[in-house]
Amino acid sequence: MAVASVSTITAASPVGWQDALERGLARARRTLRNITGLRVLEEKARVEDGRITEYLVTLQVIFVLEDGGGEG
Amino acid sequence: MAVASVSTITAASPVGWQDALERGLARARRTLRNITGLRVLEEKARVEDGRITEYLVTLQVIFVLEDGGGEG
Amino acid sequence: MAVASVSTITAASPVGWQDALERGLARARRTLRNITGLRVLEEKARVEDGRITEYLVTLQVIFVLEDGGGEG
Amino acid sequence: MAVASVSTITAASPVGWQDALERGLARARRTLRNITGLRVLEEKARVEDGRITEYLVTLQVIFVLEDGGGEG
Amino acid sequence: MAVASVSTITAASPVGWQDALERGLARARRTLRNITGLRVLEEKARVEDGRITEYLVTLQVIFVLEDGGGEG
Amino acid sequence: MAVASVSTITAASPVGWQDALERGLARARRTLRNITGLRVLEEKARVEDGRITEYLVTLQVIFVLEDGGGEG
Amino acid sequence: MAVASVSTITAASPVGWQDALERGLARARRTLRNITGLRVLEEKARVEDGRITEYLVTLQVIFVLEDGGGEG
Amino acid sequence: MAVASVSTITAASPVGWQDALERGLARARRTLRNITGLRVLEEKARVEDGRITEYLVTLQVIFVLEDGGGEG
Amino acid sequence: MAVASVSTITAASPVGWQDALERGLARARRTLRNITGLRVLEEKARVEDGRITEYLVTLQVIFVLEDGGGEG
Amino acid sequence: MAVASVSTITAASPVGWQDALERGLARARRTLRNITGLRVLEEKARVEDGRITEYLVTLQVIFVLEDGGGEG
Amino acid sequence: MAVASVSTITAASPVGWQDALERGLARARRTLRNITGLRVLEEKARVEDGRITEYLVTLQVIFVLEDGGGEG
Amino acid sequence: MAVASVSTITAASPVGWQDALERGLARARRTLRNITGLRVLEEKARVEDGRITEYLVTLQVIFVLEDGGGEG
Repeated sequence: MAVASVSTITAASPVGWQDALERGLARARRTLRNITGLRVLEEKARVEDGRITEYLVTLQVIFVLEDGGGEG
Repeated sequence: MAVASVSTITAASPVGWQDALERGLARARRTLRNITGLRVLEEKARVEDGRITEYLVTLQVIFVLEDGGGEG
Repeated sequence: MAVASVSTITAASPVGWQDALERGLARARRTLRNITGLRVLEEKARVEDGRITEYLVTLQVIFVLEDGGGEG
Repeated sequence: MAVASVSTITAASPVGWQDALERGLARARRTLRNITGLRVLEEKARVEDGRITEYLVTLQVIFVLEDGGGEG
Repeated sequence: MAVASVSTITAASPVGWQDALERGLARARRTLRNITGLRVLEEKARVEDGRITEYLVTLQVIFVLEDGGGEG
Repeated sequence: MAVASVSTITAASPVGWQDALERGLARARRTLRNITGLRVLEEKARVEDGRITEYLVTLQVIFVLEDGGGEG
Repeated sequence: MAVASVSTITAASPVGWQDALERGLARARRTLRNITGLRVLEEKARVEDGRITEYLVTLQVIFVLEDGGGEG
Repeated sequence: MAVASVSTITAASPVGWQDALERGLARARRTLRNITGLRVLEEKARVEDGRITEYLVTLQVIFVLEDGGGEG
Repeated sequence: MAVASVSTITAASPVGWQDALERGLARARRTLRNITGLRVLEEKARVEDGRITEYLVTLQVIFVLEDGGGEG
Repeated sequence: MAVASVSTITAASPVGWQDALERGLARARRTLRNITGLRVLEEKARVEDGRITEYLVTLQVIFVLEDGGGEG
Repeated sequence: MAVASVSTITAASPVGWQDALERGLARARRTLRNITGLRVLEEKARVEDGRITEYLVTLQVIFVLEDGGGEG
Repeated sequence: MAVASVSTITAASPVGWQDALERGLARARRTLRNITGLRVLEEKARVEDGRITEYLVTLQVIFVLEDGGGEG
């Protein structure tokens, strides 16, 4: 019966999209309590001199809003 | 001339989507001041033993940002 | 390698969409640090007595989340 | 073998989307003969003081064009 | 410099989509002057006893609005 | 770790979309075991003599595939 | 509680999209009473000899249907 | 009041999309009883040596589920 | 010249999306003969205590329908 | 293991969409080697004096890039 | 009866989207002969220190393919 | 202030989508100078005898157009 909120973030990694996703989740976890899910919206990459230098992933982060008197 | 922000939430109810929507609005109201509108994005349901046990609605909540020196 | 967040806002102006966008950016800047980009999602207008009285623009605002222990 | 036309309308109700839809159909019926179908495109609501004051539904109305020499 | 309007219609034929489109255009021509274009939006068919009995095409019809004091 | 399948159905009711949905679920339950969820894709209605005679809802039905040697 | 209708038009200008939009509104105003809003759907341009000769804008025009016995 | 199911198929023909569609319907008819409609989702073609060798059409097939104790 | 059918499934894995996809394919293979292709529709994840506990992938599975007198 | 490129073209014919598609393919073949497929994106028509004077089809053309040292 | 090709470009300007579009057209004109149209796909901006430093527009450029023996 | 172009390619690999993407980039690099980014549009796979034999990825490749007198 809880109410969840959906936040959109973009995370980057020099290694790959999976690593970018984990960095995004790690960062989101510092600000948002009660994360319950993720959804991948878009995968992009930056290229320099013919090589991928940064993997970018755009995610929806779903987190349950607490029932207390405010958000925190 | 105000600026409004759009937040996406998902709310649930054992009764129906209309009730889920009202629960979502009630919860949003505790955190967000100056809500001016809602938009239904998606209606889903969880089913157990052939019966709907939870109605889920995903909503956009529109709220006017106050003109003060910060969000609150 | 930073993580950015995407927020959706709607801004209005009696003058035009370009002005609405600048008002939206000015308002977002008061609340969000480290804005790095905008994307126009929708342009609408309110009309009264056959004349446009308000230009409305819906924007995505991209801002980098700081690496500190919380959002602020 | 008939030809049908599709018209888009938005209707409002203080009670709910179902009532808004019936008001929209009642209004469309005054202008359009031979309505054969409806399709819901969007459900929104206006909120004041934390309560829904107006339910808004956007509909496609399908109506058969008569075979006579004009639309009426 | 003219202003054009876009109307959506659905036409049917027992023969095929091409014929349905021509029936739709013939019907639209009786009501709308100055048609300048068509765009196919959807092709469907009704089936009975395993055979197609009706071809249905949904079209956008574009027609130039006349500069006179009204639509006609 | 289960695998679920998604089936699309359209159900009708003379009463309303909620009733159409329940009829659709009741029918799906006779054929599909282990239904776990529903998603509303589209709401339409048939109209005769200016009144809605049939409410139509298109649903996705999600059901878990059993781990046995076949589907049943 | 009014019912509004949505009409789609395309307007052109040799000067720019803003001017095309105003020409479209001016033309719509001659035929449609009670226009309350506009929404930009698409911006295109015709090019000749490497220069833009015509700016084209496709708009949704929203207008309230009067409560009288017909549309006019 | 019946419940219909929607199945997606892709059919091919060396002759054209119309023929591909009829082959798809003929094949669907062998497995599905009570087909009531079709909807074209996508038209593609394979090309070899600059000539189309295969026309491919993706269709939704709508068929009424029988009221008996199971699907057959 | 064969006719293929498209089925949508959702598969889960504690390891990653690639593993979820292989589990989905393994399960689909038990029920569907003649699978010829897959298409990824959506990638999601469940999160508990700030860690991904389940990777979820939604797939379209394409399989050729046999020419025999029925589906099997 | 080859890499293919996707090019979008629009072709026209006074006869029909099928003929427009073949003209588009014939033209593409003069510039692009190794075409392997087509996909129809949009079908439109120009109308004059109530008759279709030009059928327009927008296509994606898929062609394999050669493994040589450059495109030509 | 000509065949046109559609190319997608992104152009930038420190001044505004209109200027970015003209820069994009000027650049496209150097490479592509016979440009006949443009379509705006997306408008974005880069922001630094709370001010827009670069306006970015993504365009489709339509140009007629010449009938000669090759593209040039 | 540069102008970039967007090209769509499809690449294949027997190993996985990541490898397919790298092959696509390697091939694009042979023809296109100044590649600055990639965007994943679609991931598919071919299946034979119940196993994936080819991973296919469709990509947008973004590359800056040089300021010289032509494309090369």
